[in-house]
Amino acid sequence: MDAKGKMKDITDRAKKAARVLSIMSADEKNRILLAMAEAIKKEKDAIKQANVQDAEAARKNGKNEAFIDRLTLTDKRIDGMYSMIRDVASLEDPVGKTIEKTKRPNGLVIEKIRVPIGVIGIIYESRPNVTADCAALCFKSGNSVILRGGSDSVRSNTAIYKALKKAAESEGLKEDAFILIEDTSRDMVDAMLEAAGDIDLIMPRGGESLIRQVAEKSRVPVIKHYKGICHVYVDKDADLKMAEGICMNAKIQRPGVCNAMETMLVHEGVAGQFLPMIAKKMTEAGVKLKGCSRTREILEGTDVEEATDEDYMTEYLDLILNIRVVGSLDEAIKHIAKYGSNHSDAIVTQNRGNGLEFTKRVDSSAVYINASTRFTDGGEFGKGAEIGISTDKLHARGPMGLEELTSYKYVVHGKGHVRQ
Amino acid sequence: MDAKGKMKDITDRAKKAARVLSIMSADEKNRILLAMAEAIKKEKDAIKQANVQDAEAARKNGKNEAFIDRLTLTDKRIDGMYSMIRDVASLEDPVGKTIEKTKRPNGLVIEKIRVPIGVIGIIYESRPNVTADCAALCFKSGNSVILRGGSDSVRSNTAIYKALKKAAESEGLKEDAFILIEDTSRDMVDAMLEAAGDIDLIMPRGGESLIRQVAEKSRVPVIKHYKGICHVYVDKDADLKMAEGICMNAKIQRPGVCNAMETMLVHEGVAGQFLPMIAKKMTEAGVKLKGCSRTREILEGTDVEEATDEDYMTEYLDLILNIRVVGSLDEAIKHIAKYGSNHSDAIVTQNRGNGLEFTKRVDSSAVYINASTRFTDGGEFGKGAEIGISTDKLHARGPMGLEELTSYKYVVHGKGHVRQ
Repeated sequence: MDAKGKMKDITDRAKKAARVLSIMSADEKNRILLAMAEAIKKEKDAIKQANVQDAEAARKNGKNEAFIDRLTLTDKRIDGMYSMIRDVASLEDPVGKTIEKTKRPNGLVIEKIRVPIGVIGIIYESRPNVTADCAALCFKSGNSVILRGGSDSVRSNTAIYKALKKAAESEGLKEDAFILIEDTSRDMVDAMLEAAGDIDLIMPRGGESLIRQVAEKSRVPVIKHYKGICHVYVDKDADLKMAEGICMNAKIQRPGVCNAMETMLVHEGVAGQFLPMIAKKMTEAGVKLKGCSRTREILEGTDVEEATDEDYMTEYLDLILNIRVVGSLDEAIKHIAKYGSNHSDAIVTQNRGNGLEFTKRVDSSAVYINASTRFTDGGEFGKGAEIGISTDKLHARGPMGLEELTSYKYVVHGKGHVRQ
Repeated sequence: MDAKGKMKDITDRAKKAARVLSIMSADEKNRILLAMAEAIKKEKDAIKQANVQDAEAARKNGKNEAFIDRLTLTDKRIDGMYSMIRDVASLEDPVGKTIEKTKRPNGLVIEKIRVPIGVIGIIYESRPNVTADCAALCFKSGNSVILRGGSDSVRSNTAIYKALKKAAESEGLKEDAFILIEDTSRDMVDAMLEAAGDIDLIMPRGGESLIRQVAEKSRVPVIKHYKGICHVYVDKDADLKMAEGICMNAKIQRPGVCNAMETMLVHEGVAGQFLPMIAKKMTEAGVKLKGCSRTREILEGTDVEEATDEDYMTEYLDLILNIRVVGSLDEAIKHIAKYGSNHSDAIVTQNRGNGLEFTKRVDSSAVYINASTRFTDGGEFGKGAEIGISTDKLHARGPMGLEELTSYKYVVHGKGHVRQ
């Protein structure tokens, strides 16, 4: 059978499962999830063994250490999968919730009710824990999921998948609620991306180049974020001590993630006072600074490279920071519109009007007043867990939890109502 | 300049306009909308003249009468545009509304706020009033819109567009909030569909073949419905008098629209009593009947053609009805899953359990208990106006009004909060 035929078989099974999942009670889903969590614990050795083989093969294939690190399942990471699945079991089930209920003048009662999306496809790279994360989140939200991980982690993914699947089956789940595609050929990805009508949503999880490939080729709707170029703007009316705390946190607390700050914008009215303060702190923390010409003037004597247009468009994911002095709030907002990625941006100000203008005009999924961009996260937003972060405008923006994995339907109650 | 270059220029203007619209007050938008409505009245003669030319050309090009009818702007239709724009002005502005507000244990206040989607593209066929509908709805919801109508209505569309544009400009709107593409070459449609990142959403308005072409080619997210194959299921516990009223209404009140019934499913327990009643009424109303073998047995003597698999998949948009006798609620639900289009489906029953099971298991954008499928409509749902109906799962399902033309952003208020 060719890839398209194989995919059709897979999506048929996934659709069948989705119908069953869509009406499964929260109790039943939770019981199965708890068994899935236990299975991760029970099969820990088998999962680790498979992972060691993956890591060895990846080393042989010349992958670098950052890659090997993402691939490697330490004890802590395996325990993390266990706790994550249990956490998902403890979260409220969004399916069946009434979002709105209205009674029309003619007596019709219209309810807007959360339903699962249906069949979700996940295309991911080397991190094997995505297998467990996505299986659990999609299952709890009543969706079936088709998982296609990278070839480098196929042994680990398969071991995790088999453990989860066996546990779910032993709890009586007959349907293919989660399907791992073990065939890691490119053809199977292409067949997934072509399966419009059979897969309802695809979420790519990985680096920007994977996400771009998926978004460009997919006939199935995709929700994604390409990258996070996050800004903190220090307003002329900022509390500079607060600004220092927020900027340091946004840059150094975890520089390798998408909600870390890449560019700091500083109003000219406070730049002379603020920049020397923050530059010292940043440099002490090992941050390499790049800056506009005014920044470099103010910080004369400090090692600050000239920041280029390209720098302002780069997601460093590293201890590197662009600094730009701006003449106004408007200039800051325009910089963010031009170079930003609509992910997370913050203003530090004691001026309510400026804060309001910033939050209205900056078109990002999360906009902050006097808080670090690092809070853009499902857990921090109270969603319990997240399947990803969206910088798209449609369906879901920002951190996506269980609710964002649902759609809705209208249920209309009449008493023989006919339209006039 | 090639089509791609022209489109880039258009989307640049539209994006600039979208930034201004996104923060425009409701009062300002309403003032401009009222002027736009007046302009339709004032320019009525010019619009009619252009329309007469379009209709003549279409006749020369051999278009059929149904086509000419959709194209023709009668006085009533022009007055309809006027009232529609005034209605849109009177509707509540969704932009800036708080959807949710939560305070996290750490004191962060997270607001989820409605924002416009951005730049919306509309690709439509011969109905010129779509120009006014979409301009008004997108404008009110803070979105800029790029309109690309069919070549047959280009003179009418241009006349309407010019009237609206002039009125908006005279009220001080400098930006290109609505842009009509007067170049009706296929290349421009292709360039629109390729404009991912510059256009946020495309909505095709027209026949199924247009919609399929758009959905298959578009790199920009598309919201759509292909067709409406709507069912009414008459349960064994139905009030048959009520069932008769609902089925007649769903079929004949306006057979040419997407929420009209195409197939009636009848439980075998009541088929013997119900079918002769309803067949008589339908036949009197001029409805041509097709049926399964059991239907034809019960209705022996009445002219009922054999219904084929293809019939069950056909949106007649006409006085034709498929009838199928089913052995159970489960069989009815499975028929709808197999042949339906996820648009609108109804059950007629006095049995609450059956009603509940139907609404849970039927995966359509609107599911009815004891009401006609004809209610799936923005006005009937209390949305005031609609830009279309979606059978997709993502972003919006069912009738789409102003709210469905918005996205959201998170606005987070801190007091110097940094992540631990």
